[in-house]
Amino acid sequence: MQSKLPNVGTTIFTVMSKLALDTGALNLSQGFPSFDCSPELTALVGHYLNGHNQYAPMSGVPKLREALAQKTADCYGIAYHPDDEVTIVSGATEAIFSAVTTVIRPGDEVILFEPVYDSYVPAIELAGGIPVYIPLSPPDFSVDWAEVRSRITDKTRLIMVNTPQNPNGRVWTRADLEELAAIVQDKDIFLVSDEVYEHILFDGRVHHSLMTHPVLQARTFVCGSFGKTYHVTGWKIGYCLAPRELTREFRKVHQYVTFSTITPVQYALADFLKHPEPYQSLSAFYEAKRDLFLSAIQGSRFTYTPAEGSFFQLLSYRQITDEYDYDLAIRLTHEIGVASVPVSVFYHDQTDHKLLRFCFAKDDETLLRAGEKLSKL
Amino acid sequence: MQSKLPNVGTTIFTVMSKLALDTGALNLSQGFPSFDCSPELTALVGHYLNGHNQYAPMSGVPKLREALAQKTADCYGIAYHPDDEVTIVSGATEAIFSAVTTVIRPGDEVILFEPVYDSYVPAIELAGGIPVYIPLSPPDFSVDWAEVRSRITDKTRLIMVNTPQNPNGRVWTRADLEELAAIVQDKDIFLVSDEVYEHILFDGRVHHSLMTHPVLQARTFVCGSFGKTYHVTGWKIGYCLAPRELTREFRKVHQYVTFSTITPVQYALADFLKHPEPYQSLSAFYEAKRDLFLSAIQGSRFTYTPAEGSFFQLLSYRQITDEYDYDLAIRLTHEIGVASVPVSVFYHDQTDHKLLRFCFAKDDETLLRAGEKLSKL
Ligand SMILES: CSCCC(=O)C(=O)O
Ligand SMILES: CSCCC(=O)C(=O)O
Repeated sequence: MQSKLPNVGTTIFTVMSKLALDTGALNLSQGFPSFDCSPELTALVGHYLNGHNQYAPMSGVPKLREALAQKTADCYGIAYHPDDEVTIVSGATEAIFSAVTTVIRPGDEVILFEPVYDSYVPAIELAGGIPVYIPLSPPDFSVDWAEVRSRITDKTRLIMVNTPQNPNGRVWTRADLEELAAIVQDKDIFLVSDEVYEHILFDGRVHHSLMTHPVLQARTFVCGSFGKTYHVTGWKIGYCLAPRELTREFRKVHQYVTFSTITPVQYALADFLKHPEPYQSLSAFYEAKRDLFLSAIQGSRFTYTPAEGSFFQLLSYRQITDEYDYDLAIRLTHEIGVASVPVSVFYHDQTDHKLLRFCFAKDDETLLRAGEKLSKL
Repeated sequence: MQSKLPNVGTTIFTVMSKLALDTGALNLSQGFPSFDCSPELTALVGHYLNGHNQYAPMSGVPKLREALAQKTADCYGIAYHPDDEVTIVSGATEAIFSAVTTVIRPGDEVILFEPVYDSYVPAIELAGGIPVYIPLSPPDFSVDWAEVRSRITDKTRLIMVNTPQNPNGRVWTRADLEELAAIVQDKDIFLVSDEVYEHILFDGRVHHSLMTHPVLQARTFVCGSFGKTYHVTGWKIGYCLAPRELTREFRKVHQYVTFSTITPVQYALADFLKHPEPYQSLSAFYEAKRDLFLSAIQGSRFTYTPAEGSFFQLLSYRQITDEYDYDLAIRLTHEIGVASVPVSVFYHDQTDHKLLRFCFAKDDETLLRAGEKLSKL
């Protein structure tokens, strides 16, 4: 059959995780923790598996929507209405897919910042939209706002933001929000903001959610994930926060994409969300892991700028070899036993900045061993 | 914002379940069991919640794909390859959405049999497809194959089948499969077959899965659900079985719609699937419920043809009132305390056959009380 996504193969995460498994390499490629979640959280799921196994409401279990609205108010001082502005979905990937599908019609243009997470473009293409790429470059990956302004047209319908950004770990500043607001304020442009790493920021940085700027909040679908925050990436449960009118349209799509999300897990998360400690301590937890990984490669010839947020660290190998990053990632998996993700896969034209992405959401032992192996290069 | 699904409101299932809750009515509207799943199954999930909480592979956990391929071979004698032809997804709704999105491009025509499950048309419309409706009528809801042949055009790209059919409980015959095969065999037409009630058939009927006809199998995305079979509708886990080439394209879409499905539940189902008893006994279990419900309304003025499969029974109220079915469903919820689903919502032009749909996946007590209340009418 003729492919609707002819440029799409298997995701790099699947490719590298499989290769790591097949070769027995340390898997620092796909972004998931090598450690387990809180036993309190699994105990709660166990509890609700008694008698809470039928359909949740399409928009989510009320007490989870309420707990999430409360947590959002606590963290950012923004009040989303739990009934009309909070929707629980089957992972942030679904949140992003459904938000893009809600907004985009054939011919609409969507502005993306590269390196860009791999699910955005297929979602745009399936809706008939046209991706417009704004490249960001190392070492700082900062946005050239004049460039953004120059790429806005009558057809620009959506801008997609990701902060902290995967794969490069960059965190948007208040000034970025102001620049973005100045661009969109008098235009019919929506925003999808992927904020799944909202609780993982380093060196004293704070997360500037798009919801914290009123001009942006009014037109933004904020996409979040419980998986990244609570070490349960495999549970595939996330959410979308958006003003009433946007949520109404978002839910029309969501209700036919997955309809609803696993009920007992929703009840468990509703209870667990009430503890601020797990998400308040997350930045310090991952900062220590980033630092451990960076100290473990001190003896190597890799160079780097420390990640500002997320659980990914880019390493430049420019001083070591000028192989294509994809080839090097494969080679290192086979020869050194460390799997990573080549950053070129996040650029539509495979721009090769000689960077590999390493996920440091791993136990300390794995990080130390990976550092040791990488130092041999 | 301008709606991409202007004709879509909240699903009837959400409307009626909420009304049932608000009024305290017996809820025979939305299709979910009022009883819980096997404690063995929840115990298995509890077990795998220890240490199986990160991303499953995009296509599903291998041992679940293998167990499902084995079960499919046992039930229907058809061998799908677990690696390349079986995909685990976040519920049959996602399977249907992703299959439609895989096949349909703007302008493609899709043949549907009405009454039609409510998620099909929005999926088609979001992909830019054009629904072509073939009406089925009570009492037998059989397909007029001459009518189908006359509606095929150069643009027909997909035919959507649902057997046993929701809401009318009709089961396709071998002759239906032959008719369909004769139509599609020399054409570039795909099939999506929603077979979520595959294990619920009455009065000695057997399920004729589209996979059992080679001409159909080669072009069919078979969509199935663990939720309906194991009394866990709220877990939102289903699957898509399709030949290699179709599965390859299906997964391209699935990997950007939800990516993967909750890991510990996949492991648990892989173990549980090995017991044939739960699905082998399901028809008898639900046939007894259908019969109990029908005997409980013997004293009423409703008339009916017994459902052939599924867990839904239609009742005709033509001898009682000629109210619009939607109005009657609302009124019965308020006045008699029994919530049902009006069948007109399953027709694009709201054809009113004076039928209400009752879900009999309820404990016996509820079915008896509902029958008693309905007999008062
Ligand atoms: C959905 S698999 C990819 C996980 C992830 O976010 C990443 O590795 O970037
Ligand atoms: C996804 S909610 C609808 C459940 C169902 O299949 C039905 O009631 O028809």
